[in-house]
Amino acid sequence: MKASARNQFEGTINDVLIGAVNAEVHVGLQGGETIVASITKDSIEALGIKTGMSVLALVKAPQVIIVTDFGGYKLSARNQLQGTVSEVKPGKVNAEIDIELKGGEKIAATVTNDSVNALGLAKGKPATAAFKAGAVILAIKG
Amino acid sequence: MKASARNQFEGTINDVLIGAVNAEVHVGLQGGETIVASITKDSIEALGIKTGMSVLALVKAPQVIIVTDFGGYKLSARNQLQGTVSEVKPGKVNAEIDIELKGGEKIAATVTNDSVNALGLAKGKPATAAFKAGAVILAIKG
Amino acid sequence: MKASARNQFEGTINDVLIGAVNAEVHVGLQGGETIVASITKDSIEALGIKTGMSVLALVKAPQVIIVTDFGGYKLSARNQLQGTVSEVKPGKVNAEIDIELKGGEKIAATVTNDSVNALGLAKGKPATAAFKAGAVILAIKG
Repeated sequence: MKASARNQFEGTINDVLIGAVNAEVHVGLQGGETIVASITKDSIEALGIKTGMSVLALVKAPQVIIVTDFGGYKLSARNQLQGTVSEVKPGKVNAEIDIELKGGEKIAATVTNDSVNALGLAKGKPATAAFKAGAVILAIKG
Repeated sequence: MKASARNQFEGTINDVLIGAVNAEVHVGLQGGETIVASITKDSIEALGIKTGMSVLALVKAPQVIIVTDFGGYKLSARNQLQGTVSEVKPGKVNAEIDIELKGGEKIAATVTNDSVNALGLAKGKPATAAFKAGAVILAIKG
Repeated sequence: MKASARNQFEGTINDVLIGAVNAEVHVGLQGGETIVASITKDSIEALGIKTGMSVLALVKAPQVIIVTDFGGYKLSARNQLQGTVSEVKPGKVNAEIDIELKGGEKIAATVTNDSVNALGLAKGKPATAAFKAGAVILAIKG
């Protein structure tokens, strides 16, 4: 698939939890991390989503928050992937930050240059990429 | 209304599906496409949203993914609008892509320059604009 | 906490409404405004979220829509904070707009330069920052 989402993770569906309108899908990545996606119940049915299926989890870079120091806080975001900054690509107002996860995958985040400075983002710095379950789009083959 | 959302589609509410906390609203556009919005049940009540009402569906450009080749994949995103790239406005890190839909409306997406290159985005290229129901804000008159 | 979200509001949890999969949390800011967050029920339990707790509400700037004239429309977005534009930082394609709220807090929005022009955004202009409950991430201490 050719899609503009900077983040496209290959994984396997480990769990599906269905609510009244929305559902939650747990995707296990090859490197061991889990991504949680919140999608509508209609999409579960339309795509025939079931445990064990192969899937792509798509996340746009502007949806990703980078945390370098939790300072005793816990985040409500269902997805919090730890890694190390592998690249900083600065623009005029925004920058793209790439983080290499422990499992080997990379995740890109778009943040403002102000945040790059405030967090001291630079290659090699430990960082967590956080994003909500509602930010994830799933792609199923077939 | 003067709002910064790049995408503001006029339409009519065709269907309202209510869950425990969230609800799903189907908006028919003048060109024939349907946009699905996920909003809270409280908003349904506060705005008095009902089938048959005129509505504006607002979507920010950074929420929109562009797909040029599905390669056999199906997406969970409830909104997938087909069209043709009508303009590419490049920035230093990000670009704005305008897609003209089959029904005549235009939709704008903000994507990284890397994606512009990877997808070969250029004027005249067929493309699908995909976004989640949760990315849509509705505006009701009166 | 050091996180890249441009908007980090300190507040107190005033209300928690739980659905089948998702929940809605009302956060009262020090300046008097309320922010509504939609998070999963699992996060409510994992973070032990309860009325009366102190909390940070995080919102990324690209999630925020700016409205300068409602023209008789009402928005479904649960969060609509009124204020005055305090700064416009233009980039090549996008700009960052800071709005000072009535209660004294500031909120940043990333919008396209086209929107800056269309809305006539400039320092001192009254504006409303609107964002969906699903755009908010909560951070709890301890």
